[in-house]
Amino acid sequence: MLVWKWLRLLKKKGLAVTIVEMTDRILPKMINEKFAKIINQHLVENGIVLKLGEKVQEIADFKGKKIVLTNNGKISGDFVLVGVGVRPNSEIAQAAGIKLGVSGAIRVDQHLRTNFKDIFAAGDCAVAINYITGKEYYLPLGTTANKQGRIAGQNSAGKNYMFRGIAGSAITKAFELYIGKTGLSVEEAIREGFDPVEKEIEGITRASYHPEKKPIWINLIVDKRSRRVLGVQVVGSEFVKAKIDEIALALLLEAKIEDIVDFDWCYVPPTSPVWDPLGIAALQTSKTLYR
Amino acid sequence: MLVWKWLRLLKKKGLAVTIVEMTDRILPKMINEKFAKIINQHLVENGIVLKLGEKVQEIADFKGKKIVLTNNGKISGDFVLVGVGVRPNSEIAQAAGIKLGVSGAIRVDQHLRTNFKDIFAAGDCAVAINYITGKEYYLPLGTTANKQGRIAGQNSAGKNYMFRGIAGSAITKAFELYIGKTGLSVEEAIREGFDPVEKEIEGITRASYHPEKKPIWINLIVDKRSRRVLGVQVVGSEFVKAKIDEIALALLLEAKIEDIVDFDWCYVPPTSPVWDPLGIAALQTSKTLYR
Repeated sequence: MLVWKWLRLLKKKGLAVTIVEMTDRILPKMINEKFAKIINQHLVENGIVLKLGEKVQEIADFKGKKIVLTNNGKISGDFVLVGVGVRPNSEIAQAAGIKLGVSGAIRVDQHLRTNFKDIFAAGDCAVAINYITGKEYYLPLGTTANKQGRIAGQNSAGKNYMFRGIAGSAITKAFELYIGKTGLSVEEAIREGFDPVEKEIEGITRASYHPEKKPIWINLIVDKRSRRVLGVQVVGSEFVKAKIDEIALALLLEAKIEDIVDFDWCYVPPTSPVWDPLGIAALQTSKTLYR
Repeated sequence: MLVWKWLRLLKKKGLAVTIVEMTDRILPKMINEKFAKIINQHLVENGIVLKLGEKVQEIADFKGKKIVLTNNGKISGDFVLVGVGVRPNSEIAQAAGIKLGVSGAIRVDQHLRTNFKDIFAAGDCAVAINYITGKEYYLPLGTTANKQGRIAGQNSAGKNYMFRGIAGSAITKAFELYIGKTGLSVEEAIREGFDPVEKEIEGITRASYHPEKKPIWINLIVDKRSRRVLGVQVVGSEFVKAKIDEIALALLLEAKIEDIVDFDWCYVPPTSPVWDPLGIAALQTSKTLYR
């Protein structure tokens, strides 16, 4: 995620930046197709050259330059930043007989014990339980590492605290745009046996007459059968974290879509319209369900 | 609440403004004593003269000026703004035989029906159920009026939707400071038969190294016996609504304090520290409970 920060700094320094992405969109795991267009546009407006659906085949040195060869041509530049995901550094553990789980991360129970009862694991090397599906999940982020570290530390000193898991909450900032998600996408929800419906809205962050209002896009995912909230994706230049966090909490508490319509959010013109955009998204999603 | 907006505009115009408040603090129903000091200081820094614990006894005209006489002296000025709360305009309803409830507001059931089955009431004239206590409550705010109006309209046209009530969520902005609350204060919680504990923290709104970080004060109120979250008060210059809304949702879902520690909030340096201040407040409150 730090790559975004670098991008901004590189552009600030006046460098010409090209992103080559193998899939059809930036952040394919975080954001649906429609939201990807908003992000693409924002990147292009900030002077980034985007090459989507293009696969890097080789990175070569040539007369002091770097040459990136793709299936569609070549790009020449002063240097190349590679951001292709994260893998757990779990070889030592595996060699010692510690069992690995999903994505090759160290398998821990909810008390963060490995298969050796006196050995604990936490953070970017370890799995976490997804509290929506109850299954193992690997998403190495700072919040999870920090919480797991506290609990593993306490438990290794004799306590018996439980790490209740994660919802897959993540947020990043690309130039002025926050991009966030929590819970399951429609594709993930189908894979987990849910019958999901999603509803995307474009709202505003402040009262319609407030000079600083900005657009905010919210895509809520709900299970048709149980009406349970399954996830959300949010894009906008402010208040994105708030919406993600509200749904991350709703996911832990197994909230239904009507809970997101009915809860008593507060209101003052500089912080939202009277109908908070998350409330509007929830109301629109319930209408989709009633149909 | 609009009075705050006027205050800012009056100061912007260069007027000398004095607030006379009968109780020992501004917004006595929203904020505890410690937070009141933060607000008082902010008002004074913005050039407001504060007269607390002083009771207005008379407002008189004298040579084209207004004279405000208090139990402690007199203040002379060009005009006087009076903000002493809101009362429901329910006389016509009462005269027609419609029953009134708490604070003289029109009594409605959860379908927003009055005691006459074909007459509905909604908004600033009507009561709402407090979804923490299950009791009638009167807090005339725009969000409630808007939601009740939709439901009363739909129900009077044959639907049977339910208004699940309010948590007493409110937010206002005094100059640069947001002041918010939801749920019960400690005093209200005791009155309702809970055994509350409260824990106040001072956090920061963004990562400690982020140049735009600001202080944020959070006071969480929790029932000792059930560990149920009962309410929160928040003061700060950004992200206050988010914390209020998270707890307002938690109140509807009857969350326990550990849920606020354990839910998977998202994190990026411009939106919070790794440990979100609400998570810190919840963790500190659980420690208080464990003691």
